[in-house]
Amino acid sequence: MQLQLESPLDMHLHLRQDDMLKIVAPLSAASFAGAVIMPNLLPPVDSAERLANYRRAIDAAVGDLTFEPYMTLFFRDYSEGELLTLREHIIGIKLYPAGVTTNSDAGVAALEAAESTIGRMEDLGIPLLVHGETNDFVMDREEAFLSVYDRLAQRFPRLQITMEHITTRRAVELLERHDNLRATVTLHHLLITLDDLAGGLLNPHLFCKPIAKRPEDRQALLEAALAAHPRLMFGSDSAPHPLSSKECSGCAAGVFTAPIALPMLAELFERHGALDKLQDFVSGNAQRLYGITPPPKVVRLHKEEFHIPAAYGPVVPMNAGGTVTWCLS
Amino acid sequence: MQLQLESPLDMHLHLRQDDMLKIVAPLSAASFAGAVIMPNLLPPVDSAERLANYRRAIDAAVGDLTFEPYMTLFFRDYSEGELLTLREHIIGIKLYPAGVTTNSDAGVAALEAAESTIGRMEDLGIPLLVHGETNDFVMDREEAFLSVYDRLAQRFPRLQITMEHITTRRAVELLERHDNLRATVTLHHLLITLDDLAGGLLNPHLFCKPIAKRPEDRQALLEAALAAHPRLMFGSDSAPHPLSSKECSGCAAGVFTAPIALPMLAELFERHGALDKLQDFVSGNAQRLYGITPPPKVVRLHKEEFHIPAAYGPVVPMNAGGTVTWCLS
Repeated sequence: MQLQLESPLDMHLHLRQDDMLKIVAPLSAASFAGAVIMPNLLPPVDSAERLANYRRAIDAAVGDLTFEPYMTLFFRDYSEGELLTLREHIIGIKLYPAGVTTNSDAGVAALEAAESTIGRMEDLGIPLLVHGETNDFVMDREEAFLSVYDRLAQRFPRLQITMEHITTRRAVELLERHDNLRATVTLHHLLITLDDLAGGLLNPHLFCKPIAKRPEDRQALLEAALAAHPRLMFGSDSAPHPLSSKECSGCAAGVFTAPIALPMLAELFERHGALDKLQDFVSGNAQRLYGITPPPKVVRLHKEEFHIPAAYGPVVPMNAGGTVTWCLS
Repeated sequence: MQLQLESPLDMHLHLRQDDMLKIVAPLSAASFAGAVIMPNLLPPVDSAERLANYRRAIDAAVGDLTFEPYMTLFFRDYSEGELLTLREHIIGIKLYPAGVTTNSDAGVAALEAAESTIGRMEDLGIPLLVHGETNDFVMDREEAFLSVYDRLAQRFPRLQITMEHITTRRAVELLERHDNLRATVTLHHLLITLDDLAGGLLNPHLFCKPIAKRPEDRQALLEAALAAHPRLMFGSDSAPHPLSSKECSGCAAGVFTAPIALPMLAELFERHGALDKLQDFVSGNAQRLYGITPPPKVVRLHKEEFHIPAAYGPVVPMNAGGTVTWCLS
């Protein structure tokens, strides 16, 4: 049994820098025709020069593989002149609401300072990508932020806003309320709940932000993904950390899924009789929502047990040592 | 500034066996006049011989220190003859409801098989100590079990039932409903929520079962402890694991607090102006509820910054490397 995917896209990806970039970029490029590249480096990608340098480093790491890095900038105040110059090099600007504290009112207040730049982005047709969490109790952070999305969507009706890596039923419901809201969802949030992280032994390799939520949340995300909800896109949020930063006393957040995402998605969609929806979920929706045309690239999978490696270099993938019923051809 | 505690008791303690026992037993005996010793060894403590052997090993590990190990048996079907023989050597029998699955109805069903032994315990005045969790979603497990406590308390009105290591507001509320229910609460559940485990970096040394819950749960536990609620007792659930079982891909549940519990409790109760309630919380309530008279032992603390060690042998304590404002004299 074979499966062909046309130009699959990963709409939320961390590629890191230097040695880690060289390890993980080819793994994404083996599966995907392109990916939206997160800008949260040290220092963040927030200038034309850093953007160009990062793009060059990614292209070098990918080598001859067909792979379009859809670059993003780290949100700060940008002048209209800057945005005009940068616009053609990016797919959007990523907002990490650092000032967002304790409740959504404060979130809105902190965002008010950002509104002039957001207004310029709306005028210039630059999408806003948002890590939508407050600093509330860890299980409440996404839901507490939803009112900020609600307000942004109303206040900037022509702005395209992506709720990144949604994890709750209420976030799925919010998609219905505003035409200018869309969302990405990860592989791991379709598969796990807090139980998988902490219900038996604690598994640091499933620790991520936003944290995996309740069974009813996963169910809502899964139903939306399996139906290829027209405003939902696959974004792995694949986030590599070396083993030494995961199996330790202060474990970094992030699940590494890039090399296994398509086989595991195929397995999941097949199990639910929804393989016919996978193309839209991993490419069609993103092309339509962002108005992008990725490089032509056919990725083939076949039905064969694939043993997930214990590690890719220093990085332990999700389900390391396990198996998946589909395999990249 | 000095604080004297008369015969402080730890009403829920894991001492393990062999080398670990030799490391941790003296640390508990340095702070406490006695402790209720959990029987979940491999194999479990469920016979007169194992009970006697374990007691002997504990006494040997404690050496010359004044320390009464209040022994428990692991729950199984016990005949009346067995219970009559064992009764004088134990403070109670600990039930880990292994058959409890997915919901409290199943929990009750699984417990029905246990009811003849529980009935004998009631008749003989042997307390029942319970790990009250179902196999539901990890944040719901204790609340889902409360209906089992409710039923047990009604069905066996003369049975003394201890809800071990309670973690939720609703468990505190349930204490009001039945005179024959009492509870232990740990130090860590008075201090942390799921945020401390997983809200920032993931901290495996704060991973425990039951998992730390929500801020409103901690608040309810704290209010009950600070008031020395007459049916609430301190039980550390101090559970030592070697570092290699904590900072790894499958981290064992347990927080090690035995050597720092009294200083941290003094700090906590002082901060809330409740130092006058500490004696009842760490000894008086337990003496009254179990009808025990621990060996006379005055434990003195003084106000001095204590630097919590990075490890006690192979075991990392809670707040390793941090400080606490009270110190054992």
